[in-house]
Amino acid sequence: MMVTKAAPAPAPESVGNGGRLASLVVRGADATGIVAAVSSVLSGHGANIVSLDQYSDDPQGGAFFQRTVFDLDGLQAALPVLRAAFDVELVKRYDLSYTLRDLSVPKRVAIFASKSDHCLLDLLWRHRRGQLPVSVSMVISNHPDAADAVHGFGVPFFHVPSMGTDKSAAETEHLRLLRDNVDFVVLARYMQILSGGFIERVGVPIINVHHSFLPAFVGAGPYAKAKERGVKLVGATAHYVTEDLDEGPIIEQDVVRVSHADTAADLARRGADVERAVLSRAVLWHAEDRVVRHGNHTIVFS
Amino acid sequence: MMVTKAAPAPAPESVGNGGRLASLVVRGADATGIVAAVSSVLSGHGANIVSLDQYSDDPQGGAFFQRTVFDLDGLQAALPVLRAAFDVELVKRYDLSYTLRDLSVPKRVAIFASKSDHCLLDLLWRHRRGQLPVSVSMVISNHPDAADAVHGFGVPFFHVPSMGTDKSAAETEHLRLLRDNVDFVVLARYMQILSGGFIERVGVPIINVHHSFLPAFVGAGPYAKAKERGVKLVGATAHYVTEDLDEGPIIEQDVVRVSHADTAADLARRGADVERAVLSRAVLWHAEDRVVRHGNHTIVFS
Amino acid sequence: MMVTKAAPAPAPESVGNGGRLASLVVRGADATGIVAAVSSVLSGHGANIVSLDQYSDDPQGGAFFQRTVFDLDGLQAALPVLRAAFDVELVKRYDLSYTLRDLSVPKRVAIFASKSDHCLLDLLWRHRRGQLPVSVSMVISNHPDAADAVHGFGVPFFHVPSMGTDKSAAETEHLRLLRDNVDFVVLARYMQILSGGFIERVGVPIINVHHSFLPAFVGAGPYAKAKERGVKLVGATAHYVTEDLDEGPIIEQDVVRVSHADTAADLARRGADVERAVLSRAVLWHAEDRVVRHGNHTIVFS
Amino acid sequence: MMVTKAAPAPAPESVGNGGRLASLVVRGADATGIVAAVSSVLSGHGANIVSLDQYSDDPQGGAFFQRTVFDLDGLQAALPVLRAAFDVELVKRYDLSYTLRDLSVPKRVAIFASKSDHCLLDLLWRHRRGQLPVSVSMVISNHPDAADAVHGFGVPFFHVPSMGTDKSAAETEHLRLLRDNVDFVVLARYMQILSGGFIERVGVPIINVHHSFLPAFVGAGPYAKAKERGVKLVGATAHYVTEDLDEGPIIEQDVVRVSHADTAADLARRGADVERAVLSRAVLWHAEDRVVRHGNHTIVFS
Repeated sequence: MMVTKAAPAPAPESVGNGGRLASLVVRGADATGIVAAVSSVLSGHGANIVSLDQYSDDPQGGAFFQRTVFDLDGLQAALPVLRAAFDVELVKRYDLSYTLRDLSVPKRVAIFASKSDHCLLDLLWRHRRGQLPVSVSMVISNHPDAADAVHGFGVPFFHVPSMGTDKSAAETEHLRLLRDNVDFVVLARYMQILSGGFIERVGVPIINVHHSFLPAFVGAGPYAKAKERGVKLVGATAHYVTEDLDEGPIIEQDVVRVSHADTAADLARRGADVERAVLSRAVLWHAEDRVVRHGNHTIVFS
Repeated sequence: MMVTKAAPAPAPESVGNGGRLASLVVRGADATGIVAAVSSVLSGHGANIVSLDQYSDDPQGGAFFQRTVFDLDGLQAALPVLRAAFDVELVKRYDLSYTLRDLSVPKRVAIFASKSDHCLLDLLWRHRRGQLPVSVSMVISNHPDAADAVHGFGVPFFHVPSMGTDKSAAETEHLRLLRDNVDFVVLARYMQILSGGFIERVGVPIINVHHSFLPAFVGAGPYAKAKERGVKLVGATAHYVTEDLDEGPIIEQDVVRVSHADTAADLARRGADVERAVLSRAVLWHAEDRVVRHGNHTIVFS
Repeated sequence: MMVTKAAPAPAPESVGNGGRLASLVVRGADATGIVAAVSSVLSGHGANIVSLDQYSDDPQGGAFFQRTVFDLDGLQAALPVLRAAFDVELVKRYDLSYTLRDLSVPKRVAIFASKSDHCLLDLLWRHRRGQLPVSVSMVISNHPDAADAVHGFGVPFFHVPSMGTDKSAAETEHLRLLRDNVDFVVLARYMQILSGGFIERVGVPIINVHHSFLPAFVGAGPYAKAKERGVKLVGATAHYVTEDLDEGPIIEQDVVRVSHADTAADLARRGADVERAVLSRAVLWHAEDRVVRHGNHTIVFS
Repeated sequence: MMVTKAAPAPAPESVGNGGRLASLVVRGADATGIVAAVSSVLSGHGANIVSLDQYSDDPQGGAFFQRTVFDLDGLQAALPVLRAAFDVELVKRYDLSYTLRDLSVPKRVAIFASKSDHCLLDLLWRHRRGQLPVSVSMVISNHPDAADAVHGFGVPFFHVPSMGTDKSAAETEHLRLLRDNVDFVVLARYMQILSGGFIERVGVPIINVHHSFLPAFVGAGPYAKAKERGVKLVGATAHYVTEDLDEGPIIEQDVVRVSHADTAADLARRGADVERAVLSRAVLWHAEDRVVRHGNHTIVFS
């Protein structure tokens, strides 16, 4: 059971909305009038704002972020028109950047896994229940074990072995499978290191999950070390992958309480429960354009 | 320790903002263009939006609510001008109602208490630490016990006995003390029933807190009954007072875990911890115009 | 995500213990010397105490409860000897009752379900992962929908329709299927009322789960009513079934935080997450003899 | 609000028990028969066991720990007799060590503080409310600011300046004040480093609290660094002080959820809330003999 509560747990906005919902994410230097500019364009085209969140990191930085979900009859036809308007009102006038996305088109994801399948199966299960508005393009694993389970969910499974220190053959195969097929990648306890070159060439965001003791207990057997140290909490962190593998922008974190009576195996099992919960929330929020990267941290709109 | 976590715990926006921040709360029937109307007026007068939350209960009801906090140099001088503009743009054009408030002027509160002082002292303590942006006008109690403690916080204390079933003398005295002196009232475990007439005549919102087993375990000794029933959670609910005393719109709720080993006294003590936490959050949010009443429920902007 | 944390989450003691572990649960009137009597018998037979929890409801009632798990080489052969010793030392000497159980023999359970399969599948999934030390004898449903999913777990599935108000034909079939085959029954969102006669004749404990607003929001559509009332928490309660269907001894409860922005459907979805978590914990604890019924409440040894 | 829940929150057993309760903590190598030996001695002297918890770290280590609280009429007179019995039954027979303590005699504590007084005042407040079964012998601070507040609680306050890198004068004064006057020391956000010599000479346990990002964000301004990194949780750790200042055995940890919208000051404020909650639990548990140090971790009996 999770230690933490009330994590923002938005319903998947894009599920069953009849193709009328879009998300607009705006970012740039804060200035007076941006909210007015966005909302004027939208109301001028008959769109109704369903949710609007904005954040400015003033007075520290002056960066502005806004996520707006709106409802519009005839959305698909209107998107080019809206883009033209935003190019003028946001890009030219305020020097902002933006992304505008039809929420009825789910993002395509590839899930990477290894032997441990708790995160993988949790994602597939939630997806089947309509709780994850993504399209799961494929599962890639360096172990063949999960093939049957994945096929049971109707999802393509590719076994790509990755032994030794030279990962270039495996990564070439990964890139071939992923090219043009996915919008983001999820490392669901994928236990192989990705090269900086791969991260660059894959060209889409990669979400990873790891135990949250880091930088303590690095390397193998973190839970045995945590047991030794007598920790009272174990947790997990989901983050975007950068070249500093476990140091990328944090999307979500959570913990559970443990006690002296928990063995190292118990800690690992409790940790696995948190990992799957944390990762599924990070994937949901990414899928719904709720997460904006900025420097080495994120803004997560609830 | 609270069972629940991540309750929205906003910093007091109005503390030490140099008199530049105001809150605008808008409500009425949802329509396309309201966000644009608000933000255009604000940007047109040079105000920068610090936070903006909106909620529409579509498709259930069609009611729209928006809370905007903005920053404006020369706020006090600009308020009448902004009001004139909102009267046109919101009231006339969209038939909405609104409140606009200078956040540097704290709301004035009277706290009612009885023998149990845990909620009373928690509020006074948080206030002294700058965590509650209110002005505590007075404490009123039907017991004299807390007088010294309250005076220690530099707050006026009035002992108004309230024995028997006829509360009219006490309520007359209450109304005399409160008139023109307070913007809201907090019942911090005040154990006397308020008459419907009092609630009407006092003319300001009243916030109450009660154990959250209701409608179970009504009447005296709820924790003894809860112990009998073997509950595994005890909790508290803060709400606005209506004539149906404990049935008014809920502002906040929370719970803590208990076990068979807790005595009825333990349950009461744990319950008291939740009560003070829940009540202080409700008071903070009310003080910052985060809570909007609608029908028999509330919108609480985080 | 659960609001609550640190719910006692014991590892399944009986999994993979090599047939050396047994549980002893003792109950009766409190007296000086009981712990000594139990531990003397155990140490006298070479058994090592792995965990020992005791609880006395003094000064309220004078009832005593103790759960002891011990490790003994040659357990199966020693059980009759231990029983003979406890019959003397506990039953004759202290007038206590006890149960002694080889933890390597899992309790056999039948799961009843209806259309909603979230609790059912969660139990089956946890069981497959080795987290529920039970033997799932069968699933019984009044709907045929879950047959394939259940068969996928290698578990027998029986469709027993239960239409109309006369449940006697269905209950006769239930009793035929259950007789001598199960040690307890779990109602995993089984939406049919069980007759008092059935509860008596089935002769084994029945565990149920329901939303925890009760006694508020009785009847159909509880989440719509909760939405109307603006609750900030939704929760679930797992309990033993008595003739007062939803009033039996509580085993476990939990809640999650919700907000005004959650629709009634969101509340139902969040409620379902709590239901499955709460029910699986109740089943685990029952399977491990951690739960002792006493009057209308339970002692749950962590 | 705390992220975590259901932290074991035992009532102070020693408050108002009429001088009949004692705690016995036993430790040593695990062996068959220890529980029987303890409980036989107790029942042989007419003592009734109120709570009994035991833990063995088998199969990892073979160390055994047991905490027993018992109720005995004429406790003070019986203590020497019981000690004599335990010296035979536990020390001679099993080579165990033990402590036996009259719970009606509260442990004496000195609280060290610096400028930040949130932990200090929380401890004093809880103590005044009867929630901390200790005797507060004195408060020592390197700042004079808190003198009035501490005197308001009827507790002696000593201002011991501690400037520069040579702490020997201050530590000499500390030792003079503490000698024979305290059973343990609590560092309630005391921001001066203690020398290894001091820790050794003071001869009583020292409890400290620090933010729980460590080993990340060492040094000054941890919350600014955490803000930069975009953490989603902030927390605190209470632990016994060893020469490796922040690496001693952990007693308790907790966290709260934060978001991108929290400023570094917000993080610090939320962190302070956790610090005082975590520290007060650690002090309570230490005061009630619930915490046993073993290697670099603790057993905390709930």
